[in-house]
Amino acid sequence: MSFALDPRLAADTRVIGDLPLSRALLMNDARYPWVILTPRRLGAIEIRDLDIAERAQLMEELALVAATLRSLPDVEKINIGMLGNIVPQLHAHVIGRRSGDPAWPGPVWGVGRAIAYEATTLDARLNWLKLKLRIG
Amino acid sequence: MSFALDPRLAADTRVIGDLPLSRALLMNDARYPWVILTPRRLGAIEIRDLDIAERAQLMEELALVAATLRSLPDVEKINIGMLGNIVPQLHAHVIGRRSGDPAWPGPVWGVGRAIAYEATTLDARLNWLKLKLRIG
Repeated sequence: MSFALDPRLAADTRVIGDLPLSRALLMNDARYPWVILTPRRLGAIEIRDLDIAERAQLMEELALVAATLRSLPDVEKINIGMLGNIVPQLHAHVIGRRSGDPAWPGPVWGVGRAIAYEATTLDARLNWLKLKLRIG
Repeated sequence: MSFALDPRLAADTRVIGDLPLSRALLMNDARYPWVILTPRRLGAIEIRDLDIAERAQLMEELALVAATLRSLPDVEKINIGMLGNIVPQLHAHVIGRRSGDPAWPGPVWGVGRAIAYEATTLDARLNWLKLKLRIG
């Protein structure tokens, strides 16, 4: 059986594309630059469900996404989270934060409601991320 | 200049001991089994401030702590977070969660107030973690 994205993750995001291990998704929430990495490993829930090489690869993909988001002019700090209390499928959030953003200095999860990107802004951000993450 | 723990991290935790890269700390909060790993690298704030070998090592230390906390009878899910919005010094939270815990299914940060362990429970947990994490 092949990898399938959890439908809740799919509903909240747009696909950027595939890194060597993970499917990279852009959270459709204009409040924060927010990428989700989902390792394409069927049934993975915790990081122990990856092998050591896959864990190292996930770390490097996290570092690449983190550096990319950190390069945005209004990003001061990167937040990384692997929670999975609601969606068990293993996925990692990488979020660019700034003092004064809607959840600052707390975590973003569960705070307020997502504000969808306008279509042209969404396309521009997806294209920029594909370029920076060397996808496609 | 040698590594020094941020005083806010020090105030909220008890030292378990040192893994090859990180100082392992137990959050003094009996509501959740909660370990913080702080890489002993002066000035590190984001994961890009570690080199690739250190990042792989951090991932393995996260996996070890996660598996240890996951082995506790009442832990159903592991949450991992690297935020640093308040304390910039690079540190990673590893938290054992269960449905019905005080913050479930949201993240734990900023929810309610820590409940300090009783002294004997604290000692027992520190000793158990030292054993499981193979710390001296």
